[in-house]
Amino acid sequence: MEDTILLAHGSGGKLSHELVKKTLLSALRNPLLEKLDDSAVFEISGRLAFTTDSYVVSPLFFPGGDIGKLAVCGTVNDLSMAGAMPLYLSLSLIIEEGFPFTDLQRIVASVQQTAEECRVAVITGDTKVVNRGMADKLFINTAGVGLVQQGMSVSSTNAVVGDKVILSGPIGDHGIALLSEREGLRFESSLESDCAPLNGLVADMMAVSHKIHCLRDPTRGGLASTLNEFADSSNVGIRIEEEHIPIHEAVRAVCELMGFDPLYVANEGKLVALVAPEDAEQVLTRMRQNRYGSAAKIIGEVVADHPKKVIMKTPLGTSRIVDMLTGELLPRIC
Amino acid sequence: MEDTILLAHGSGGKLSHELVKKTLLSALRNPLLEKLDDSAVFEISGRLAFTTDSYVVSPLFFPGGDIGKLAVCGTVNDLSMAGAMPLYLSLSLIIEEGFPFTDLQRIVASVQQTAEECRVAVITGDTKVVNRGMADKLFINTAGVGLVQQGMSVSSTNAVVGDKVILSGPIGDHGIALLSEREGLRFESSLESDCAPLNGLVADMMAVSHKIHCLRDPTRGGLASTLNEFADSSNVGIRIEEEHIPIHEAVRAVCELMGFDPLYVANEGKLVALVAPEDAEQVLTRMRQNRYGSAAKIIGEVVADHPKKVIMKTPLGTSRIVDMLTGELLPRIC
Repeated sequence: MEDTILLAHGSGGKLSHELVKKTLLSALRNPLLEKLDDSAVFEISGRLAFTTDSYVVSPLFFPGGDIGKLAVCGTVNDLSMAGAMPLYLSLSLIIEEGFPFTDLQRIVASVQQTAEECRVAVITGDTKVVNRGMADKLFINTAGVGLVQQGMSVSSTNAVVGDKVILSGPIGDHGIALLSEREGLRFESSLESDCAPLNGLVADMMAVSHKIHCLRDPTRGGLASTLNEFADSSNVGIRIEEEHIPIHEAVRAVCELMGFDPLYVANEGKLVALVAPEDAEQVLTRMRQNRYGSAAKIIGEVVADHPKKVIMKTPLGTSRIVDMLTGELLPRIC
Repeated sequence: MEDTILLAHGSGGKLSHELVKKTLLSALRNPLLEKLDDSAVFEISGRLAFTTDSYVVSPLFFPGGDIGKLAVCGTVNDLSMAGAMPLYLSLSLIIEEGFPFTDLQRIVASVQQTAEECRVAVITGDTKVVNRGMADKLFINTAGVGLVQQGMSVSSTNAVVGDKVILSGPIGDHGIALLSEREGLRFESSLESDCAPLNGLVADMMAVSHKIHCLRDPTRGGLASTLNEFADSSNVGIRIEEEHIPIHEAVRAVCELMGFDPLYVANEGKLVALVAPEDAEQVLTRMRQNRYGSAAKIIGEVVADHPKKVIMKTPLGTSRIVDMLTGELLPRIC
């Protein structure tokens, strides 16, 4: 077998079939995928969630993960944020001619390992190869389907005045780990992406409350953008307290050095939930028993004042508007 | 609004939201999409087909279509080939910084127009922007879900000896139209991609027969690869007759000039069906009443001899093995 990907691996001919069978199917094998038909077919009944994301992260391998893990977690998390149990994923690769086979195998193994942790299966896929210089190594798209849990109605439009704002853990790890890797800022060995699947955490939360009104993972645009989306979609105000927002010391240090506001830095393994006040404590307690929610905190609440605006109280007692991100912060972090 | 796409349009911040609302949502609007949650949620019950494809075609606009039309037709066709009625699509864009807004609008309009023709809705999506030089203008991924029709079981493993091989029309139009556009071979004004949605044609065929065993659209790798996939998956032989395979004169001319075999050239609006002999004529008659099947022909049959091999009888009475495509023919045609 060749050492690198050739244009012929995307031709639909012999080498395409070899790539699919030897590299993809052998790692990801399951009864639905192995039929290799144009579509995978399965029985389903209920409320289905459907989502998609393309992943263009650079570098492909970073502390705490790689593009394969990210592509599974990102889509699993988007399904989870709809209150859905993720079931099946599609996997579509756009590969630059000359990409090393060993890197592809490592990434496909990472896809499979993460899928196993999430208990989802990759059941359909596609591979395209573009000429050298026409893509940056590898882009991945995953789409996913999941079953929405009975009795749950989670949407960014559902926030109610009085809801508590729960954050599942420290913010900014993913974006700052990526930046540090990219810029060679390796002075902090503890900097790792938080890239993680959150379907188990969401299942735990739903097991103790039917009053989780809004759920979102604050990826691109960070915590600030997610809270603004909730405030805007639900036409409510949100008040948060700066001193309650957990941030790793290393992340804070790099942010200060580079002039970034951690509120706008991307996360890939965190969630924000707006929960009815009577259920907030039990949701929080349950979250802290899950490895991905062990540092969860209540960071604020939904208010009737200043609809569509997010206000943050600083430790000094002053308040400031937390706006949506303007301009770009860190491109290609997901 | 800016004239071109900026990195900030992929940041998850204000410009991202503007792009989504003003350019994407305004063209593609429907009740599921406009919620703009991380996942779209809908009720469903039955056998669901799920598929994905990334589109990296170059050039983005070509005679007979563009990447937007291709991205809808390709995924609608993959669902149709599973015997499914396409319902919903996802749309994920990877855009190169500096891409003209007017081109994006034209492509999104084409997505919407094609989706309307197919009666499918784009209900979830994603947009990424990569730095200049890190992608070739625009790549699109669509995933799709559809409901498999009751009583239908279509798979490349289902071919039975005696089945007739029906081809829906002339082959090679898409690949040769792309090549001609790319290479400036404009001597043939009649060369147009056959890019078209085939869900209506498949519905017509299924209305008159429950004995359609295999269905596939011969895209990359062409008719030869599709027939080899059927033969291989079903462990049967396939015999076709060269003189029955329709090919436009212009396609034949370019193929002769460039040394291509039209059997391996990509199509984007054709299908091959293996149908039980007792139903073949009525399926053919019904196909010819559909605009996308008006030139349908029976080109051969499934045989017990030479399992896993496709043999073509030439007009001179000789026979030759039609193998899978080896190497690449035309990169980036879909």
